[in-house]
Amino acid sequence: MIDFEQLFARDLPTPAARLRGWPRYNFTGGHNDPEIVPVEELIASTERVLRRDGRSLAAYNQGGDPLGYAGLRAFLADKLASKRGIETAADDILITSGSLQGLDLVNEVLLEPGDTVIMEQLTYAGAIERARRRGASVVGVPLDQGGMRIDLLAAALERLRASGVRPKYIYTIPTVQNPTGTVLDLERRRQLLALSDAHGVPIFEDECYADLLWEGMWPTAIRGLEGGAQVIHIGSFSKTLAPALRLGYVSAPWTVMSRLLACKTDGGTAALEQMVVADYFGAHFDDHVGRLKAALRQKLEALTGALEEQFGAAAEFMPPRGGIFLWVTLPDQVDTAALAGPALEAGVAFNPGLAWAVDPAAARHSLRLCFGHPPVAEIRAGIAKLAEVCHRETGVPERSANVARNQALQSG
Amino acid sequence: MIDFEQLFARDLPTPAARLRGWPRYNFTGGHNDPEIVPVEELIASTERVLRRDGRSLAAYNQGGDPLGYAGLRAFLADKLASKRGIETAADDILITSGSLQGLDLVNEVLLEPGDTVIMEQLTYAGAIERARRRGASVVGVPLDQGGMRIDLLAAALERLRASGVRPKYIYTIPTVQNPTGTVLDLERRRQLLALSDAHGVPIFEDECYADLLWEGMWPTAIRGLEGGAQVIHIGSFSKTLAPALRLGYVSAPWTVMSRLLACKTDGGTAALEQMVVADYFGAHFDDHVGRLKAALRQKLEALTGALEEQFGAAAEFMPPRGGIFLWVTLPDQVDTAALAGPALEAGVAFNPGLAWAVDPAAARHSLRLCFGHPPVAEIRAGIAKLAEVCHRETGVPERSANVARNQALQSG
Repeated sequence: MIDFEQLFARDLPTPAARLRGWPRYNFTGGHNDPEIVPVEELIASTERVLRRDGRSLAAYNQGGDPLGYAGLRAFLADKLASKRGIETAADDILITSGSLQGLDLVNEVLLEPGDTVIMEQLTYAGAIERARRRGASVVGVPLDQGGMRIDLLAAALERLRASGVRPKYIYTIPTVQNPTGTVLDLERRRQLLALSDAHGVPIFEDECYADLLWEGMWPTAIRGLEGGAQVIHIGSFSKTLAPALRLGYVSAPWTVMSRLLACKTDGGTAALEQMVVADYFGAHFDDHVGRLKAALRQKLEALTGALEEQFGAAAEFMPPRGGIFLWVTLPDQVDTAALAGPALEAGVAFNPGLAWAVDPAAARHSLRLCFGHPPVAEIRAGIAKLAEVCHRETGVPERSANVARNQALQSG
Repeated sequence: MIDFEQLFARDLPTPAARLRGWPRYNFTGGHNDPEIVPVEELIASTERVLRRDGRSLAAYNQGGDPLGYAGLRAFLADKLASKRGIETAADDILITSGSLQGLDLVNEVLLEPGDTVIMEQLTYAGAIERARRRGASVVGVPLDQGGMRIDLLAAALERLRASGVRPKYIYTIPTVQNPTGTVLDLERRRQLLALSDAHGVPIFEDECYADLLWEGMWPTAIRGLEGGAQVIHIGSFSKTLAPALRLGYVSAPWTVMSRLLACKTDGGTAALEQMVVADYFGAHFDDHVGRLKAALRQKLEALTGALEEQFGAAAEFMPPRGGIFLWVTLPDQVDTAALAGPALEAGVAFNPGLAWAVDPAAARHSLRLCFGHPPVAEIRAGIAKLAEVCHRETGVPERSANVARNQALQSG
């Protein structure tokens, strides 16, 4: 008789539940636009790469470098140079299973229980959670419309230094910040680098969403700036192509890379997906991303329009400068974590703000709405449904689509 | 200025070195036969699955169950029932990035520093290393020609119980054991289950190689036997199809599965690879594996023939009952770890025995030769080269191909 409960390690996450179906209106998660998946082009790419290199699949890492498929690293070296200002050899790029694996590897080589890391006060839930799972304390730095407040970062670093704490990294999403959609300007990027250098604390730059900036002008990645060679930089193909293809990358100094690679004991990253994406994006990156951004902007407009129509002044938000999500703050009487259950029962899923905040209290009234996956009509219907549930549960919004909510319900 | 060396976590593995090229004669690693990769069929499968389900790639886990692509889990439920005697619902199977990820997840949910695990005395290097990296002590149980010695396992369990230690699992590769190629018979499997039950210690069954057993008759997996429902079972597609496609699986009781799934925070397993393999193996598993086994047997015969020719009685081995590797023991004066460097310089790579042994001293004179990847002619030439280097370094073998080595060198 085996009693597994007695055998499990301590402090495991809550056991997973059996799958609940896909919500009717799904505003959670970094999903992408299904209409943009280039089915025929991916078939053509697969045919090409398999016919050319298919037999190489018989060996781990295709008999090549554990850093990943050389063709995909060559594409990335070009893309990082031309789009992000990062000059790097393909042999200093590591392909990972999504940028999540990059995050895990960086944490593995740097973090021990009791360590401290710095992040934007509002940031990617997975980054906060993973650092904490490794026993690190997370210090949050407030943001404004221009991204991380560098003056407050400087103060936090001073405070930590005064108490003898040297943080292991400053994690930042400078370009289309998650969840706020802000972009850190060049001046702040340079100030951030100077602080990193002065305090000997590395910058960990997550550029998952950088390719989805609406405007054509991208600010150079922090790793691409003068003095940026020590920055650890990660990115992803989930947001530009498809998240079910598990592909991301790390660009970092070899001192760090040689450690990441030693900890990457997974037998390699999915090779067929690497080959296919290298072939497709090698020829189609710009036109693909252009089409995707046009579709996403249209969805964002539908979302902000629906919010204005359904929530009026009750929903505060700043339209993001790119990406796939909108950060929305509701009045004080709305606890978004409490709203999530009733909303899901009505078919509407969203990310309650608290998971996206270093200090959960700072985001109790906020929520993250991802708009990449649902079609425009679903976005409109989903937000109308959300307004209905929110009104029922909290009294907010008082009016929707210029109709007082109570009246609408009475007549309905 | 960032001094990363000061910031790294303690006890990291040795930093990775820059890539060394593929050895001329490569007898290491679980590589497969390149000639067997079904290039045209994989292209056809890709075309079919992308045209049918390509748009689903836009969502994490294709919008479905984080357990993995439903089509692949359905295929596995059939395969596990018909080939391994395991009756399981597809919803109790987890698809992983290679069986390595299964190994990591099982270790993550069960192991803490100071724990003890039991393994076969000679076993998969990665299993030993990963348990030790988590701070566990590994107790080795000797094998004979029939696999793990169950009488000695019983003694080890008693000894541990007497000192108050309850091991976290008994890890076994019962079918085509790595590295010995042995197969545990049904009687021993039943005895193993009884011991697991009596001591409350779960069995962790690794069946990476089970599909590559030469004979048509497979002994039922331990998880498939009466009383086996508590066994944690992992398997792989690396050995039946291609290791650069990163696909493996876990079949386990839901108590364990719900924990594994909660720890699988990788955003899902590569979906295109899952879809393609489900489609291809759904139609071609038996004929593919049949072709593969025929090719592998031919390579094994070339390898054993070359060893007999080049090493004569100096090389002791038992031809395995399946798989892709041969375990060879050389005379006492040969330290295979010391031989590896000179052999590699001459272009021959092999796995020195010590990494495949819980007690490295037990395998100092042994080596593992993987024969799946090199063509027959390379196998012959590589073993001749190895004999040449081995003779030069150690005096073994004294004679090769019926020619005294010294004489051959003088005349050459």
